[in-house]
Amino acid sequence: MAADPVRIDDPGDPRIAGFVSIRERDLTGRDGLFIAEGTVVLRMLGEAGALGNGFAAEAILLLENRLAGVADVLASFPQTVPVYVASQAVFNAVAGFDMHRGVLALGRKPAAEIGATLLGRLPETSLVLAGCGLSNHDNVGSIFRNAAAFGADAVFLDETSCDPLYRKAVRVSVGSVLTVPFSRGLSAVVMLQGLAEAGFEIWGLSPRGDVPVASIPAARRIALVLGTEGEGLPEVILSSFRTARIPQRPGLDSLNVATASGIALYQIALAMERVG
Amino acid sequence: MAADPVRIDDPGDPRIAGFVSIRERDLTGRDGLFIAEGTVVLRMLGEAGALGNGFAAEAILLLENRLAGVADVLASFPQTVPVYVASQAVFNAVAGFDMHRGVLALGRKPAAEIGATLLGRLPETSLVLAGCGLSNHDNVGSIFRNAAAFGADAVFLDETSCDPLYRKAVRVSVGSVLTVPFSRGLSAVVMLQGLAEAGFEIWGLSPRGDVPVASIPAARRIALVLGTEGEGLPEVILSSFRTARIPQRPGLDSLNVATASGIALYQIALAMERVG
Repeated sequence: MAADPVRIDDPGDPRIAGFVSIRERDLTGRDGLFIAEGTVVLRMLGEAGALGNGFAAEAILLLENRLAGVADVLASFPQTVPVYVASQAVFNAVAGFDMHRGVLALGRKPAAEIGATLLGRLPETSLVLAGCGLSNHDNVGSIFRNAAAFGADAVFLDETSCDPLYRKAVRVSVGSVLTVPFSRGLSAVVMLQGLAEAGFEIWGLSPRGDVPVASIPAARRIALVLGTEGEGLPEVILSSFRTARIPQRPGLDSLNVATASGIALYQIALAMERVG
Repeated sequence: MAADPVRIDDPGDPRIAGFVSIRERDLTGRDGLFIAEGTVVLRMLGEAGALGNGFAAEAILLLENRLAGVADVLASFPQTVPVYVASQAVFNAVAGFDMHRGVLALGRKPAAEIGATLLGRLPETSLVLAGCGLSNHDNVGSIFRNAAAFGADAVFLDETSCDPLYRKAVRVSVGSVLTVPFSRGLSAVVMLQGLAEAGFEIWGLSPRGDVPVASIPAARRIALVLGTEGEGLPEVILSSFRTARIPQRPGLDSLNVATASGIALYQIALAMERVG
């Protein structure tokens, strides 16, 4: 059980300094910390900590009327985690905007996992996602949510993709960024070469892909590669690996990349008999 | 070609009053008008007007450095549509927030189409979506984008669903709300009864659905029914019609409703041979 709740009446109280103006700071990337919003994400942060995957809570800030509703969630945190409660006025003054959810936690990230380390501990039979240039936080969050829903073992992001632990990505992922292992930071080409050398069949997803996604055959290890919306995957990747498309009406705009990832993952998870 | 551009130097200029504080006014639902953002949506508004489906532009407001880039898009609007250009400072002061896109149009909605009228003009072979309680603008926008991608003939929304012409929904739909016919306003039960009487096979999408979506058989007319995220479809609907599920890992949270709609539409469009 987390610590006994402490009431905060001053938005400038140093004990809650970590929660100040979280919307603006979202993009500044404070090393090592992230913001978790909402009851579901708070619950997953508690479970992640209990699982020992390296995520931990530094502090929890609640709207006073939300305290009773999250009592069972607080039970999953160690007693060293402070819990602060505040009125709506104080809460909004701290957060810097109208935070209807009223449930916030400041989390600490685990040490970043090197791509090779994550690759080395994947199961013999694996399904992973690889993202190249995924710079939109909503899309990255949605992609993690899809990865969790279809049982992907890991997500690899290249150096030009955004941090999945940005506030909006965490929220949109409904906490899946805390449970699906990921690594980020290599160049796209090095990342995909590493996957290929580890026995992964690499499939690039593109509106111009060679085969429909339903034709991707089952394999021991499959990596689905996603490119940025608009530009799509670069030619050097499309020409180096096999490619698949989602059949759709011809038109100006293809599917959103998160939706496309969901459809392709669904189809591959069926082929690999990971869902039934 | 739209009218010759007029430079605006005063954010209070009455000619651009319709664009003032669009973010805040988004939720107030000014009858008859909507905001279109970005080049792609502007292009679709121009095409919609030319198609005569009832959408029209009232005015266009551009960041001065965007004018050259949208010249070809402006060509699709009638000369009666005024075009205003402004500096970044004036543009931001008008919009009320930092509008990086720099491309806005004030659109006029067509007269709302009655569900029965839309139903009456659907083709003999039809695929439609029916939404019950879809109150999130992002989800509704994404659902329209998916509907366009998979060639759905129409979208029916119940009275508790939100207006697809809200600013965020228009943006997320990438303008698909201007091309996919829709009707909104009946109770869910009346809406679905109307579809059933018009010969539609009704399939409710639910994590607890009876069959996997891949087992939905082709039919002359299919209506895919989507419920609100979280609650899902009400029991009265699930028990009255056939239901389908997307196979996924058991867990706290199901797929996002927009992603789920994409997967189910993809599967049904394949079954009906609407995409290939």
